[in-house]
Amino acid sequence: MKEELKIFHRIFTTTYDAIEKFMNMLNPVIQNATDDHERLYYHHIFEEEEQRLSRLVELIPLISKFEKEKSDADFAPTNNEFNRLLQELNLEKFGLHNFVEHLDLALFRFTDEDRSTMLNQLREVSYQDYQQVKAMLNEINSRFDTNYVDPHAHHDEHHDHLERSGAAAPARVTVKHKKGFTVGSLR
Amino acid sequence: MKEELKIFHRIFTTTYDAIEKFMNMLNPVIQNATDDHERLYYHHIFEEEEQRLSRLVELIPLISKFEKEKSDADFAPTNNEFNRLLQELNLEKFGLHNFVEHLDLALFRFTDEDRSTMLNQLREVSYQDYQQVKAMLNEINSRFDTNYVDPHAHHDEHHDHLERSGAAAPARVTVKHKKGFTVGSLR
Repeated sequence: MKEELKIFHRIFTTTYDAIEKFMNMLNPVIQNATDDHERLYYHHIFEEEEQRLSRLVELIPLISKFEKEKSDADFAPTNNEFNRLLQELNLEKFGLHNFVEHLDLALFRFTDEDRSTMLNQLREVSYQDYQQVKAMLNEINSRFDTNYVDPHAHHDEHHDHLERSGAAAPARVTVKHKKGFTVGSLR
Repeated sequence: MKEELKIFHRIFTTTYDAIEKFMNMLNPVIQNATDDHERLYYHHIFEEEEQRLSRLVELIPLISKFEKEKSDADFAPTNNEFNRLLQELNLEKFGLHNFVEHLDLALFRFTDEDRSTMLNQLREVSYQDYQQVKAMLNEINSRFDTNYVDPHAHHDEHHDHLERSGAAAPARVTVKHKKGFTVGSLR
């Protein structure tokens, strides 16, 4: 678990910096938006990343604490703090997933070289990190038998729509929802 | 606290149904999207609401449990499960906030009578519920002295950009970021 915590720490520290870069890019876009729809759209994405940032401010020290202070005996579902850590990591897996999509959406609009180069760099790292977090959490959740069911698993089974063939091209997205899918099935 | 739990239960059950309505509206939009950008855009919002739905599937029974089984002595920061409940409620306050903005963004695009009527109805209820959740959590967090700092408080102080004058008109959004605001200040 110590090795995994080290990787989680690296990934969420990296994404923290990536959020800052993305928000700093969005700031003038929001200031100079030409209409209310555009302004709300980018401000909305800005705020969702701001929310993620404020959660990471809590999560990163929690990971450090487990890295430094805790022994293997603490990595157990009977430990409330460990459960909280796992729950937060599961949440931030979605945070990373949504961030990749925010970057993909931005890549459709900011096609100038400076911004598209930066967005593509952030996108590549975030996508790799998302995949690694997902794999590690699947493994940890099965190891600790937490009965955690990934509500996104059906996406990954049917179509990993975040997959991209080339780094420089805008995202090619194929979204196929199962026929007759209703969210009521989640109840 | 029992009375507040009853209100939380009503609000999150209501928003659960509202998410279903919104997702069912988005489904054909995604299926019939005319380009990749449009498809990714609505699919992204669809997924964020799907994530919220799967969290509410956990939260609603947790609220019920506290309503039915717990006594006032359990409503204390020394109770881990109560802390988890508060943490989830704080997260879903943002979920409601983001939902209102998803509805506002949709109102810019779906201007036909059927969809705009439905979206406006969901928007009015969600906005009221967001305000109520925010007020209740502020009060609860101060009562229990949880040291919780709302990372969105600066928005509400400077401009409640979710405020709307009329129910039927599309959102009028005014976004002013403080000059020199950098997210690094969160560290």
